[in-house]
Amino acid sequence: MEGEPVYALFTPALVVDVDKVKRNAQRMRERCHKLGVQLRPHMKTHKTLECADIMTGGSRQCIVVSTLAEASFYADHGFDDILYAYCLPLDKVERCAALSERLDLFQVLLDHPDALEQLKKRPLKGSRQWHVWLKLDCGNGRAGVLHSEPGSLQLARAIAEADGVELTGVYAHCGNTYNCRGVEQIQTVAQETTNLTLQFMDKLKAFGISCKSSIGSTPSCSHPVQDMGKLSEVHPGNYVFYDVQQSMIGSCSLDDVAVKVLTRVIGHCPHRNQLLVDCGWAGISLDGGGKLPTGYAVIEGHPNLKLLSMTQEHGRVEPTSGPLDYSKYPIGSLLTLIPYHSCATAMMHPVYYVHSEGRLLGKWTPTRGW
Amino acid sequence: MEGEPVYALFTPALVVDVDKVKRNAQRMRERCHKLGVQLRPHMKTHKTLECADIMTGGSRQCIVVSTLAEASFYADHGFDDILYAYCLPLDKVERCAALSERLDLFQVLLDHPDALEQLKKRPLKGSRQWHVWLKLDCGNGRAGVLHSEPGSLQLARAIAEADGVELTGVYAHCGNTYNCRGVEQIQTVAQETTNLTLQFMDKLKAFGISCKSSIGSTPSCSHPVQDMGKLSEVHPGNYVFYDVQQSMIGSCSLDDVAVKVLTRVIGHCPHRNQLLVDCGWAGISLDGGGKLPTGYAVIEGHPNLKLLSMTQEHGRVEPTSGPLDYSKYPIGSLLTLIPYHSCATAMMHPVYYVHSEGRLLGKWTPTRGW
Repeated sequence: MEGEPVYALFTPALVVDVDKVKRNAQRMRERCHKLGVQLRPHMKTHKTLECADIMTGGSRQCIVVSTLAEASFYADHGFDDILYAYCLPLDKVERCAALSERLDLFQVLLDHPDALEQLKKRPLKGSRQWHVWLKLDCGNGRAGVLHSEPGSLQLARAIAEADGVELTGVYAHCGNTYNCRGVEQIQTVAQETTNLTLQFMDKLKAFGISCKSSIGSTPSCSHPVQDMGKLSEVHPGNYVFYDVQQSMIGSCSLDDVAVKVLTRVIGHCPHRNQLLVDCGWAGISLDGGGKLPTGYAVIEGHPNLKLLSMTQEHGRVEPTSGPLDYSKYPIGSLLTLIPYHSCATAMMHPVYYVHSEGRLLGKWTPTRGW
Repeated sequence: MEGEPVYALFTPALVVDVDKVKRNAQRMRERCHKLGVQLRPHMKTHKTLECADIMTGGSRQCIVVSTLAEASFYADHGFDDILYAYCLPLDKVERCAALSERLDLFQVLLDHPDALEQLKKRPLKGSRQWHVWLKLDCGNGRAGVLHSEPGSLQLARAIAEADGVELTGVYAHCGNTYNCRGVEQIQTVAQETTNLTLQFMDKLKAFGISCKSSIGSTPSCSHPVQDMGKLSEVHPGNYVFYDVQQSMIGSCSLDDVAVKVLTRVIGHCPHRNQLLVDCGWAGISLDGGGKLPTGYAVIEGHPNLKLLSMTQEHGRVEPTSGPLDYSKYPIGSLLTLIPYHSCATAMMHPVYYVHSEGRLLGKWTPTRGW
């Protein structure tokens, strides 16, 4: 396979442009260096060793993951300083304890007193401490204690004061940047999340508590505000691949997107002015709901085409207007889909095909499960 | 793991009730036997050996698949009489040839003269014939030559007359039953598809051509019309698991659904009257678009709860009306999701946990890729 052109691949196939991956990773590192903030890249988008090496510059240190399967996978391959940034699931306390006792620095996260109680009930061996981040909701509206609630400070203090437990940091995910359009809106949310997090740190200081702080999301870290330099860390992840959604938010240009799905024409349907491709939702996911002007994806080099509906292994493509010229799309011809959401598209593929300038270099195999 | 209760599983987890699987499979076999039609079960929903054994009654013969990865997987494990019911992708002709030369009976499908040309260019070794089904569109509006077009007969005749190629059958998928509500509507579509297919067979007969015929879809085969007994085969697949969608169509009752996703409460959000569960779209898929009255799934035993929005690893649950009583849903408590579309949900899981009456029996590992 190595050295062959990407168009020799069987389709559908997820292809990764390693030069763009490296460029996206390098730019994020430079941005963080300039700001003076530690980058803790998130692995959830790709879940591979190779991409983790690129994002950490080969250090295999200082990463964040969304599942315990990822944490174990990276730990098994020599990674350390791993933050499992997911509100501690009570069924997985023992697995977290094992990782905490095995790695130099395994960190968990929580937003509820019940989770803290579970940690206290399971003291770590060898006089080790649980390293705990408090998840703060600064307006994102998903997990986290609400920054404005008195309970948030109480919980932070309870973590800091508990035996066998250390308050390592305060963690906020500004996923509400995904509703933004353009740099100005992104930076408004980034500024707000930064302010609220720093205000929370000040309140902790008043109680004599100091710890790290971290915010993140690909939009905010692609266009950081200066005050993010006052945080300890940032934790974006999607930036290494980017996608159509990020280009619409304003995080990147469409040319920065490093991951695409190759598909082939497998049918002509002149009676409904459509063609069929061999990529259905099994190959690209249903993320985005087909609401792009071009449907479920952007079809590279064919702005007049729309991926309008899919079943498991079929995609229906039609022109945005006018009749389809079938001579341009013979059976077997290749189309390239730029995914709406690369995290969701990557999840559908058991293997990613990696290329440089269209020549295959090899395969990356992601970890799966929980 | 064996013998432990399902609720000991880490979540999210896909659990399969093997008794329901066997019951669903048995009922379909009996239905087909009574009709006098050969059942060729589709593997695309589960893609596992164990479930294939249940569906074929252990014969490992006479199956249909949607990807060449499935075909190879089953061939590697002693299955034969495999129909790759997907319009022949031109990039995969050589792999299809290899399977045709290796198995007793490997069958392909096509709906375009270009695909036939490719088969003719690659004669099989050992004086073997390509076994080819013609895909007919009887109103489903996806793949297939339109039954009413003269081209459909021409293509059937070209297949029958080509050297090294045999017209094995005519194949129609009545996926348009998925728009039905209730048995009457399902049977109207089933009758129509059967009529159009049988009429097409008659036209072929007038040219001295006889071959098999097959239609299928889980709704039509769950409520077959008598005339389906005049066909050679039927090819449903989803019926072995069923799902909420099938119960709404009228194919089954909700109690027949054999596959569920276990999830746990990981967060309380009283400020927005929601709780968070550890199943996001990575655990159940975005299929259905959240349009059920209960959102993306049915939450077993909690008709008042709605899974209203998800990100990769988080699901937001709220009551359909009124305030949430958090004392009923402590952190760590288990909820059971009945999936909207089991094909899509199963695709998200690298392993299925199989149980009988809530006691774990083992794991099934599906094949993936293309």
